[in-house]
Amino acid sequence: MRVAILGMGSVGKGLLQVINQKDLGITVTAVADSKSALMDRDGISIEEVLEAKKIHGYCGDTSLSSVDVVTKAAYDVLVEVTPTNATTGEPALTHILQALTRGRHVVTSNKGPIAREFERLHRCAAKNGVMLRYEATVGGAIPVIHVLQQGLAGNRVRAIYGVLNGTCNFILSRMAAEGLSYEQALLEAREMGYAEADPTYDVKGIDPAIKLVILANTFWKKTVQLEDVDITGIDMITNDAIRLAEEEDCTIRLIAEANPERGILRVAPRLLPLSHPLVVEGTLNAITIETDLAGEITLIGKGAGSVETASAIIGDILFIRDFHAGSHKKAP
Amino acid sequence: MRVAILGMGSVGKGLLQVINQKDLGITVTAVADSKSALMDRDGISIEEVLEAKKIHGYCGDTSLSSVDVVTKAAYDVLVEVTPTNATTGEPALTHILQALTRGRHVVTSNKGPIAREFERLHRCAAKNGVMLRYEATVGGAIPVIHVLQQGLAGNRVRAIYGVLNGTCNFILSRMAAEGLSYEQALLEAREMGYAEADPTYDVKGIDPAIKLVILANTFWKKTVQLEDVDITGIDMITNDAIRLAEEEDCTIRLIAEANPERGILRVAPRLLPLSHPLVVEGTLNAITIETDLAGEITLIGKGAGSVETASAIIGDILFIRDFHAGSHKKAP
Repeated sequence: MRVAILGMGSVGKGLLQVINQKDLGITVTAVADSKSALMDRDGISIEEVLEAKKIHGYCGDTSLSSVDVVTKAAYDVLVEVTPTNATTGEPALTHILQALTRGRHVVTSNKGPIAREFERLHRCAAKNGVMLRYEATVGGAIPVIHVLQQGLAGNRVRAIYGVLNGTCNFILSRMAAEGLSYEQALLEAREMGYAEADPTYDVKGIDPAIKLVILANTFWKKTVQLEDVDITGIDMITNDAIRLAEEEDCTIRLIAEANPERGILRVAPRLLPLSHPLVVEGTLNAITIETDLAGEITLIGKGAGSVETASAIIGDILFIRDFHAGSHKKAP
Repeated sequence: MRVAILGMGSVGKGLLQVINQKDLGITVTAVADSKSALMDRDGISIEEVLEAKKIHGYCGDTSLSSVDVVTKAAYDVLVEVTPTNATTGEPALTHILQALTRGRHVVTSNKGPIAREFERLHRCAAKNGVMLRYEATVGGAIPVIHVLQQGLAGNRVRAIYGVLNGTCNFILSRMAAEGLSYEQALLEAREMGYAEADPTYDVKGIDPAIKLVILANTFWKKTVQLEDVDITGIDMITNDAIRLAEEEDCTIRLIAEANPERGILRVAPRLLPLSHPLVVEGTLNAITIETDLAGEITLIGKGAGSVETASAIIGDILFIRDFHAGSHKKAP
């Protein structure tokens, strides 16, 4: 499999390292960051690219760009791992559409375009006979999209509930475990590198809402938008509220919920019994899928991290490879 | 997809009902029970078969047998759901080999042949260019095989730990929750239909050990046998032991564990913190997969039940369909 990678942030670098270390049959024929690009149809040197990035701050030839990679490089799968723009989905949206239109598969960790243009992107992929996969957009290393699309194929999904934001879960866990205030727990999250300088996107519930939109588009209807989600963050949660919850053997978690039967699309702090499977600690994510045949299936795992995201991306790349290799194995 | 179903116990009947109720694009062209069989290349009437089974105790023509179905019926996928024989794997083993040799895909819930002859069956499937899938053999509705083979593809699995037997988990949960003795909890499990008249297979840990063999064959080496597993059941667990565990905020669960690095293949009661994700209640199953990239992924769900098993079987049938349809969607 020849892949071209757009984006050399922590996810792109983590992915390159994993591909370099493992014998997965994946050849990287192009990379691009915001300032430069590098293309070689026989495969670039991953060590050299990582070294160049470290020394110069960019990976390749500054006269080349992402657009050159998307439109000219030799690849089977475009891996789009640039930073998310939740409002427009750009420039990732354009890159993905160009690759699909060129008849190339796309794997992405980029929530923006998938949440914004789910239907349009999937129509474009279908029209061009290629696959669009986005496991890495939701739940980090948890293979929830695989489980929804393959493992539970044939099931009707009644609802999905989940802890989809590790930053919020860390803050709520620490408030409960140590009796910290929201501000103290947020400070600790920042010190640990779990929260950004401006934590709005996480603590106001926007990030889990975007992930919920992607899940809802996957199992419900392809036209769900961020504006359809009723969002409450965790920034108003007091330690008193958590203490009161504990008196009832409960705690508070930020739960994203999509329930077609009840018309619910919501991110909000919820009271959960301490023994509930969604009560996970620290930066973990947890997702419960409620179905007609399989009952409830809960998945727990790391919701972030460059290597964990690489795991999801590689799962998608290898799925595409095996799926299309299926043609050679067709039964008599 | 045309499927032939061998076995009309609770799993076979549950599967027929689900196929009948849902528009999955699956046509049943043959069924067989221990006394009879029915074949129609245009599709049998599921209602009539279920009715005949209820009235007569068998489903079709007593001059036909499973062998006729396997060797003569018109099907793409053989679904083998006859009762498990853990010692020889027969007669399912022969049926599966015959179908694979005929160039037909096989989906099974039958632990015996998969645990006994994993390598031989997979070699036979590969030789004939067909798929052998067995999601329903482990963890009921939990799509653990999909997660191992697809979702976590590219990961090295370092270890698997799990609660793989709902009967034992129910007994241990009830002993802890109600202060029951082992004998009292077993009696309750029998009354609820969770334990058989002879519970040896479950409470001595043989059933979870067979499932562990299947998991180990899937991610470790294809030659692991039941004899390689170090097995301790739950029938010697006293309520005192559980009380002592609780004093340390722990409880006891029957854990199946496969760890290649440490050379461990074991089913044994283990002390776990009450907050541990594998501490699930009642008949639930839970499986933690420890990997190099994704970290730990835990899956929780119903470990048994005819509809839950049907979910796993249908997931496998539709995977085969989509996988082989992949040939028509090949990218330019």
